Parts: sequence; C-alpha cells; structure tokens
Amino acid sequence: MSLEVISENQSFGGRQIVYQHASNSCACDMTFAVYLPPQAKDGPVPVLWYLSGLTCTHEIAMTKGGFQEHAAKHGLAVIYPDSSPRGDNVSDDEAYDLGQGAAFYVNATRDPWKPNFQMYDYILTELRAVALEYLPLQDKHGITGHSMGGHGAITLVLRNPSMFNSLSAFAPIAHPTQSDWGRKQLSTYLGDDESTWAEHDSTLLLEEYGWKDEILVDQGTADQFFDLLKPEALATVMARRRQSGLIRMQKGYDHSYFFVNSFAGDHVAFHAARLK
Amino acid sequence: MSLEVISENQSFGGRQIVYQHASNSCACDMTFAVYLPPQAKDGPVPVLWYLSGLTCTHEIAMTKGGFQEHAAKHGLAVIYPDSSPRGDNVSDDEAYDLGQGAAFYVNATRDPWKPNFQMYDYILTELRAVALEYLPLQDKHGITGHSMGGHGAITLVLRNPSMFNSLSAFAPIAHPTQSDWGRKQLSTYLGDDESTWAEHDSTLLLEEYGWKDEILVDQGTADQFFDLLKPEALATVMARRRQSGLIRMQKGYDHSYFFVNSFAGDHVAFHAARLK
Repeated sequence: MSLEVISENQSFGGRQIVYQHASNSCACDMTFAVYLPPQAKDGPVPVLWYLSGLTCTHEIAMTKGGFQEHAAKHGLAVIYPDSSPRGDNVSDDEAYDLGQGAAFYVNATRDPWKPNFQMYDYILTELRAVALEYLPLQDKHGITGHSMGGHGAITLVLRNPSMFNSLSAFAPIAHPTQSDWGRKQLSTYLGDDESTWAEHDSTLLLEEYGWKDEILVDQGTADQFFDLLKPEALATVMARRRQSGLIRMQKGYDHSYFFVNSFAGDHVAFHAARLK
Repeated sequence: MSLEVISENQSFGGRQIVYQHASNSCACDMTFAVYLPPQAKDGPVPVLWYLSGLTCTHEIAMTKGGFQEHAAKHGLAVIYPDSSPRGDNVSDDEAYDLGQGAAFYVNATRDPWKPNFQMYDYILTELRAVALEYLPLQDKHGITGHSMGGHGAITLVLRNPSMFNSLSAFAPIAHPTQSDWGRKQLSTYLGDDESTWAEHDSTLLLEEYGWKDEILVDQGTADQFFDLLKPEALATVMARRRQSGLIRMQKGYDHSYFFVNSFAGDHVAFHAARLK
C-alpha cells in the first residue's frame, strides 16, 4: 500500500493534504484529504473524522467547511474521506442520490453495488488503519458529518462505541428507514428485507444502544431538506432514552456549507474537549 | 435599477446574499455577493471590499475565504464583486489570463474590450453607489483583494485616497508594468503607450502618492507565482518612501485560498480597527 500525494497546501500553520490510494474495500482508487495542525510537527495528534453528504467528495468540506482554523487552535487533525467509491468501472445511477456520491456508508450486499460500495468497512477499518500507519495521529477518534455524512457518523459510532471518543453531526439524515433519503438507497444496496436496514438508522440505533457521552447535533430551522432528515425522530428518542446531548435547532440556517461553516468552531471545540 | 436576489444563506448569524443587476459601466448583467453581519439588523455597518483574482467570480472568496466568521465578530459587511464582465455577448480570449475573469480592474480603451471591460468605474463608482443605496451600509470603505484583486485594491485606493479608509492585500500583482501578469493585459486593454499603464501599477503609484495610513500585505514565501507578483518591487518602494505598513512574508504559504483563509481574520481585524 502506498499513499500518493495529490496536493498539499499550508493552512493556518499546518498542512492540508490530499492523498490517493488503492482501496481493497472499495476495489478502486480512493481519495481523501487530511488536515494536520501545526502541533503534528511535535508528535501525534487526535483526529476528527468528517463524513460528507450526498454528491460531495473529500473536497467540499476541505475548502468550504472552515474546520482548519479551529483544528489548528485545538491541535486536532481532520480527515475528510470521499463519500463513495468512484471511477468509470464503479457502478453508478443517473439520480444524484444513488450510486457514486451517495453510498450511504453501508456495505452493499446486492449487485451491481457489492463489489465497490463497501464504505462502512472502508471508513471504519481500512482508511483508519491507513491513517494510523502513515500519518502522525493518536489512536483517539472523534467523528462528525453533514447530512448523509451525519448519518454515517452516528451509525458508525453507535455500532462501534469502543472505536470513538466523541460524536457530533450537522443536519444528519436521522431516520433513513422512514425517509425517501434512505428507503430508496437501503433497498438498493441491501435489498428489500427491512430488518437489515435497522443497523443503518441513527434513531433506531440510539434507541437500542444509546451512547456513553453527550452527542452534539446542529440542525437549521430553515433547512430545505428538513422533512427528509427527520430530526424530530432523533430528538424523540434522545429525550425518551434520557440520552445526554444537545440537538440545537439553529434559527434561520439552511442545509448549505454556510450552515456547516457557522458551527464548525463549536464542533471542533466539542471534540477537542473529549479527545485531549 | 433593481437588484435580483440569486441566493441567500444565513451565515454566522448574518446573511450571505448573491445579487445580480444590470450594469451600465459594463453593459451586461453583473453578479456580486455581499455578507451582512448580524449587526446590520440594527443599523448600517462599514464595508470591506474584497476584489478577486484571475479566473475567480464573486463565489470563490465567498465560499472559501472564510471572511464571514470574522466579519460577524467585528460587524463589517463584505462585498465580493465579480472580477470581470461576463456573458456570451462579452469579448473573451482563450487564455485564462485575458478577457472574462481577467479584467485587471481597468477601464479598457481599446476594442473589442472597451464596451464591457470598465471594471475600474464599475467597482469604484457604479457598484459603490448601488451598494450604498440598497444595502444597510455606512459610507466607510476598506478594501482588500487577492492577486489580480490585490492589484485592484491597491491601485483603486492610491488613485482615490479620499474614498477609502483602509487598505490591505493578499499576494497582490504588485508591479504589472514589469510582469507577464500585466504587460500582456495592459497592452491589450489600454494599448501600447506604456505611459497609460503607470496608473495601474501599485509600485509606481505608491512611489508617487504614498498612502495616509498603514498598508497590510501578506505574501506566501512558497507562492508558485512569486516571480509574476513581484512583491520585492512594492517592498522596495515601501521602504524607500518610508510608507508605514507591513509586508509579511508568510513562510510556506502558496497562492491558494488556503493562504487567503489563513490570514482572513487578521485582515478583517485590521480593517475593522480603521473603520469603526
């Protein structure tokens, strides 16, 4: 295995790097970005994973999220994986919300998706191992994400609580088994047996397992996809289960990166407090 | 005249808006973005102009510059004009550094550029009047810019000192009359009489006029376009003329928006201190 450097730019005294590598899980070349804060020059630093939403690559959050300034201040690395396998040999669909750019952080069990769409394993196991081997990182992991990436963050953590120290999300797809952002994709990638979908639904997982620490969720009240995200389902379970945490309904914010950017500082600080 | 809203997103408690309007100066529809901080709800605020570089529209700095967080903190509006006239009826060139996206903030005197490429008047007079009429702005103006936009910022201020209160630049094209980023464009837009070029050269203008206050310039030492920018010419004149200010040679930074983003906070604070 080797990492090829695609680009490197200095940012807030640290390094914003884009790598490409051959992925076993996804059976294609995968691209990811990492921000290494200035503190990484002096030794390994904890890492915050940022999972991206529908249609996004590693690049959008890296250029529009504004995490670097805060990560440099707190001494955290940030890893921005791509949101799906890519390439001419990877199955795709004409819809923006299926196929490439819309892998939903599951391991597909149905063809033609199964050979490449193994994003759950890719993020949780393969890229984690690659990052820990090649980058100056401590084995301390926080995770967050936006929209489909918020769904990915919450589901990965709740199913693998010992692998993460902190959890937050921006406008996550919170209840995909009951949403058009979910039912279509889960049936396509996993088949029609809905019992296999439950382990990819943040609301159902939170109800079953809970989480050992506070969860931070930000959700804009003017989000144009509010009805597809279903934050009310997550909020209901969070209250019913007496799960500690904050679902902050942020007045007037929409689903864009202007929303993510506005609260990036809060999320980095939240993770930093739990990763130090 | 009317302003058409193209998009509006909440950002750091304020509003990031994109407008389109019919421009008299440029004889085409022009797009610009404005960030209104939360303080603008309570009354007019001072404004920081950000002029963009080669190939950039209003959008790049708006999404990648990271000025909003700091503008919200200090209560400044930020206006991001487009860098050139646009459209199918506007002359263009195959080169990235000539024609649309490369107007160099001059009033073209030669055809086929003359009818539309009047960016000097557009920024200095027309858009300023539009902004003051339609937006909650005080008549207090700071200006900055990146690369070609840094050139625009410095040349506009030094020729019109009473119209601006503060001046900074990110990696400006500092001596275009002696650079391939300048000679080609100035000869194309203004003709071969080099005496008409001098009023569009920051180094020559600073030598002739100086400026009443400190100038802040950031320049990356790893800038891939260093030789085209010629910061050494500006630095020489600044020292020789005993012009107050800072040219900060920032170790390891390149020409990208990762560089601009890294120092956006410093520039906003610099302008805020002079605009309040």
